[in-house]
Amino acid sequence: MNFEQFVHSIPAWLSGEGPESGIVISSRARLARNIRGIVYAHRADDEQLAEVVGYVLDAAQFAGYDSCNFIRTDDLDELHKHILIERHLISTMMASKSGNRGVIFMNGELNSILVNEEDHLRFQSLRSGFDPLGVLNEVEALESAVARALNFSFSPRYGYLTACPTNIGTGLRVSVLIHLPALVLTKEIHRVIRSSSQLGLAVRGYYGEGSDVIGNLFQISNQRSLGKNVQELTRALESVVKRIIEYETQSAETLMEEAKNQTEDKIARSIGILKTARVLSTHEFMNLCSAVRLGCFIGFVDKNYVHILNDLLILTQPGHLGERYGLKEDAMERDYMRAELVRERFVDVKL
Amino acid sequence: MNFEQFVHSIPAWLSGEGPESGIVISSRARLARNIRGIVYAHRADDEQLAEVVGYVLDAAQFAGYDSCNFIRTDDLDELHKHILIERHLISTMMASKSGNRGVIFMNGELNSILVNEEDHLRFQSLRSGFDPLGVLNEVEALESAVARALNFSFSPRYGYLTACPTNIGTGLRVSVLIHLPALVLTKEIHRVIRSSSQLGLAVRGYYGEGSDVIGNLFQISNQRSLGKNVQELTRALESVVKRIIEYETQSAETLMEEAKNQTEDKIARSIGILKTARVLSTHEFMNLCSAVRLGCFIGFVDKNYVHILNDLLILTQPGHLGERYGLKEDAMERDYMRAELVRERFVDVKL
Repeated sequence: MNFEQFVHSIPAWLSGEGPESGIVISSRARLARNIRGIVYAHRADDEQLAEVVGYVLDAAQFAGYDSCNFIRTDDLDELHKHILIERHLISTMMASKSGNRGVIFMNGELNSILVNEEDHLRFQSLRSGFDPLGVLNEVEALESAVARALNFSFSPRYGYLTACPTNIGTGLRVSVLIHLPALVLTKEIHRVIRSSSQLGLAVRGYYGEGSDVIGNLFQISNQRSLGKNVQELTRALESVVKRIIEYETQSAETLMEEAKNQTEDKIARSIGILKTARVLSTHEFMNLCSAVRLGCFIGFVDKNYVHILNDLLILTQPGHLGERYGLKEDAMERDYMRAELVRERFVDVKL
Repeated sequence: MNFEQFVHSIPAWLSGEGPESGIVISSRARLARNIRGIVYAHRADDEQLAEVVGYVLDAAQFAGYDSCNFIRTDDLDELHKHILIERHLISTMMASKSGNRGVIFMNGELNSILVNEEDHLRFQSLRSGFDPLGVLNEVEALESAVARALNFSFSPRYGYLTACPTNIGTGLRVSVLIHLPALVLTKEIHRVIRSSSQLGLAVRGYYGEGSDVIGNLFQISNQRSLGKNVQELTRALESVVKRIIEYETQSAETLMEEAKNQTEDKIARSIGILKTARVLSTHEFMNLCSAVRLGCFIGFVDKNYVHILNDLLILTQPGHLGERYGLKEDAMERDYMRAELVRERFVDVKL
């Protein structure tokens, strides 16, 4: 694996294309599966984990996927683990565990299989824009192809069995990464989160479970995976998110009607700062980008700048910065490097 | 008087030239005088005030000054009074009083005579940069020329008599407008103000007595006008301010040694904001300009940009903005106009 490539390439799910891409960054679906007859990953010894890896690689090869893209997390140093976390290819939990675990990724990082994370297999599919049914179809196709050579733990009563009871049933988590600056500015976001929760959806920050909201980016996903089929679960999420997109659009219009100058000011000076700053923390950077993304959405700035924002969403993270500029232990030095990269990318941005 | 001219012209004392002009914006001296045998201006009726105006205009004409530049404040609307206040030609106190009062100005606003402000006559001389002895000589020359045709209230024991006892003696107030961002950032400014006060100097904000410090601009002036001659008073101020200039220079060097990135960041993003903002309050504008002025001083940005800062110091004030864009009662609209003017002037500013 050439990590130098990573710090210059952007995963296709950040291409800024697809339906509703002014508000929804990406859609994602994952299916959790376990191999019948082998203890769950967190209780398995390394030999058993190795057995799982072997089965999965064989099944993937049988399904026609090139197994050379399997990355064993143990073979990676901390910096490279971070890069994979930042690209949503592995989880923080996976990076912290030793032993026979890893990830197979294919199709320009759009599809991947985590091996021996919480479950033996976690199939993942990511796409740019708002397309929950699309990613569901993708991840199901991936799962079916690999399933032909594997025997999954399955209960006729509960469905697929998983290491954590919250995933039992379909093993599905479907989610969108969504940008809701206008709902945050108009303080409507709390009502939206409450309603979503009542409708069976979880609303989290950018980095998933337990993470803070940063840059007005939210992850909305199904809370349950049991009792409904994958289509129903996905359509339920799709329908709620559609309404949230409408609210966000209305809120952005309200902002432009009632506080046009202040809104344009916030967007314009965010560009001013991104073009000039010498020090940028992740937090400030994400907030400034949020304003610019809102500017693209309302048409105050060129919509093509979304590409720059999406690129930087990945490239400014500590692992990617570390690979590009050399590892810096000091957060202040990283903030300096981040600002340098951002200025470089914003040099041609105009108002 | 053509007020439209004013909103496009910058007084020569803001030319950004002269000694120590990286730190000292301008130097100013004024002499308070009263005409013997006429009650002080605050107790005089309008006939007596008219008498004073007549004497002064005759004396100025006799001294060779063109009296056509006399502006009677009563002839001005509020907007135009504000413009004169912003150009340091009249005081707020003068603008608020009706009756026979006004100002004669000459030499591109560098020299002026206030008539019937607190005293019958207040001679004023302003220069760009650090030159207290220069402005003292100027104001003395102006006063001597006019004094030939007038008889001033004078006591052999106390010196010149003035409406307020604090001005008795020489009637001199000599001051500098000085920019001390590094002393503020390093929090050394409090010590400097305390020491200056102990050495007989008053330290005030940009708009003089009682005004807040804004944009790290301070006015330093002599507290007393009695007991020493004008040369001694001026040299005392000159010597203290010289030491403050040294402290400020050292503090700026310390900042660049110990917090180079943060200091450059502050300066760079201030330029970024000034180039892009759609709304700028006076307060924020002055603070951003302070950072850019520091940038010019330490050589991080082109020193020629000081001209833009000095121009805008005058042109962004409410009266000047009102004359340029039409009077706006709403501070928010003024903030919008201010931002527009600033963007226009900063369009070619580069880092």
